[in-house]
Amino acid sequence: MTPAPTGPINTLTAFDSIRDHWQPRRLTSVNDYDVKIAKVQGEFVWHTHPDTDELFLVVAGELTIQLRDRDVVLGPNDVFVVPRGVEHCPKADAETSIVMFEPKGTINTGDTRNERTVSVRELH
Amino acid sequence: MTPAPTGPINTLTAFDSIRDHWQPRRLTSVNDYDVKIAKVQGEFVWHTHPDTDELFLVVAGELTIQLRDRDVVLGPNDVFVVPRGVEHCPKADAETSIVMFEPKGTINTGDTRNERTVSVRELH
Repeated sequence: MTPAPTGPINTLTAFDSIRDHWQPRRLTSVNDYDVKIAKVQGEFVWHTHPDTDELFLVVAGELTIQLRDRDVVLGPNDVFVVPRGVEHCPKADAETSIVMFEPKGTINTGDTRNERTVSVRELH
Repeated sequence: MTPAPTGPINTLTAFDSIRDHWQPRRLTSVNDYDVKIAKVQGEFVWHTHPDTDELFLVVAGELTIQLRDRDVVLGPNDVFVVPRGVEHCPKADAETSIVMFEPKGTINTGDTRNERTVSVRELH
């Protein structure tokens, strides 16, 4: 049973509390899915989620999702879903604020494990 | 298998093509969940989703989610999750653009069936 939230969460304000990069925070949950937010800058790591799609929404900045055959460039309010099994590597030249939506327990680096691999943290 | 999308979708532009109210369109999908968008104005109908949480994100305007014990008012960039089993009735005094996230097949009026009950449509 999902606990009743006490009120709305402002996504823009939520980003204000984040200082580090590539460290996803849980904004809220919908059933067994997490809505995560992160600030990102630089290049992440090539990885694949074999069992799940991954939604990216850019709130501020610009995110390039490198695929093996092309780059997908997302500006503010752009949404892109990386289908399951598709290798990708996000990067951002300047600091960028993103929202992700994926099943609980999804590892941020997918089938790759390295120093970027972290668990989602609570926002506060 | 989710088909590979060809490029990003801009959520703001997507709303431009919508003229009617309370008629959700599928923006994209993540596994067996739909990201839906709708323009809303006026009062919807009291209903409950017994088996699923429902996420609301306001993009423009103001949405009041009436609960039986209180109102939750969402402005732009505010997110609120109505937990499963919680009776609610959205309303908006002026036209408001919202994003919803819920499992495919979720009925917009939940356990209530009336003239507001519609299937999600494709965006284009």
